[in-house]
Amino acid sequence: MKLAQALPMEIEHRSFEIITEEMGPHHFSQKELPVVKRVIHTSADFDYVQNLTFTENAVEAGLSALQKGATVVTDTNMAKAGINKKILAELGGTAECFMADPDVEKLAKSAGTTRAVASMEKAASLPGPLIFAVGNAPTALIKLYELITQKQLEPALVIGVPVGFVNVVEAKELILGAKVPAIVARGRKGGSNVAAAIVNALLYQIKR
Amino acid sequence: MKLAQALPMEIEHRSFEIITEEMGPHHFSQKELPVVKRVIHTSADFDYVQNLTFTENAVEAGLSALQKGATVVTDTNMAKAGINKKILAELGGTAECFMADPDVEKLAKSAGTTRAVASMEKAASLPGPLIFAVGNAPTALIKLYELITQKQLEPALVIGVPVGFVNVVEAKELILGAKVPAIVARGRKGGSNVAAAIVNALLYQIKR
Repeated sequence: MKLAQALPMEIEHRSFEIITEEMGPHHFSQKELPVVKRVIHTSADFDYVQNLTFTENAVEAGLSALQKGATVVTDTNMAKAGINKKILAELGGTAECFMADPDVEKLAKSAGTTRAVASMEKAASLPGPLIFAVGNAPTALIKLYELITQKQLEPALVIGVPVGFVNVVEAKELILGAKVPAIVARGRKGGSNVAAAIVNALLYQIKR
Repeated sequence: MKLAQALPMEIEHRSFEIITEEMGPHHFSQKELPVVKRVIHTSADFDYVQNLTFTENAVEAGLSALQKGATVVTDTNMAKAGINKKILAELGGTAECFMADPDVEKLAKSAGTTRAVASMEKAASLPGPLIFAVGNAPTALIKLYELITQKQLEPALVIGVPVGFVNVVEAKELILGAKVPAIVARGRKGGSNVAAAIVNALLYQIKR
């Protein structure tokens, strides 16, 4: 096997052709489809055809927010690292993760909660439009639900894709009932990579 | 649903119990098993029970390198972000990713290759012990194979878990034939999250 001569963009193009061939029947809109394909591209897992769920016009809400220079808040530095911050910045936006902030750790300790919860509270006071991309902590999603239903937060979009075995399924169903634009991977699967892939799929619909 | 009172470590403990219950029969050693479980924990994907492949004593080689203060080289900043750098530093090690370095971009352009390849060439000159954690670029694995067979590199461990649809399966089989300690997710699946999870699973066998 020789070192691939193909450029990364060509490999990506061919990868998306394979995904299109193999993904089978689906019910996604033309705006949703690139999101689903990019999640499969980042995971090689076709389960996302079944579990990815979009509230009505969620993609459109995300695109509109990004075009206005949204702040994308993540619950891991890993998700933040995976977001295409060059394109985000070209649109006037930024990515933030407060998980490792000393004030968040202090707040979490004094409140007896998780850093994920404290970091969502901190993020809720940022100027909008806000996109939350949660790939790890179900407690972050539950806190977002509380802030939304208490009218303390009106996010442009919630990407709810924490991965895991405890509280994860329930937290995702909760946020789907929060009456905000949401993109959710129902069930156990998801992750920081999936959260970043969804943000990037939105960015690439605007600019590449 | 109320905000979970459980602490993240308790949730992790319960998650590993569920994974143990559900993963079924396997052929992994006592040293390999925590690696497999942590990859499932980070992906909620039990396919890794089938596709994770360890060369003989690969985990032991990784543990030994980490105990000596290894440099962990990743092919994405996302994988680097996911590694527990606190514990790595306590063992005298560091994590490096050269993908965004200007000299790597220049080298890749002039050689007509990928930044992943150029970043592996740069990393090969680092003092050892070296652990390579490749979660994205099959070309990085192919380059490592070349450097190893040409006796220009003797890594302590190669973690070969790129995800994807083009050249990925072949690159993983190639590195399994390189006669170096290797942990590989055979097939298409893997990712930066999986690469980081494997490094962390090794770290946590030493220190938590």
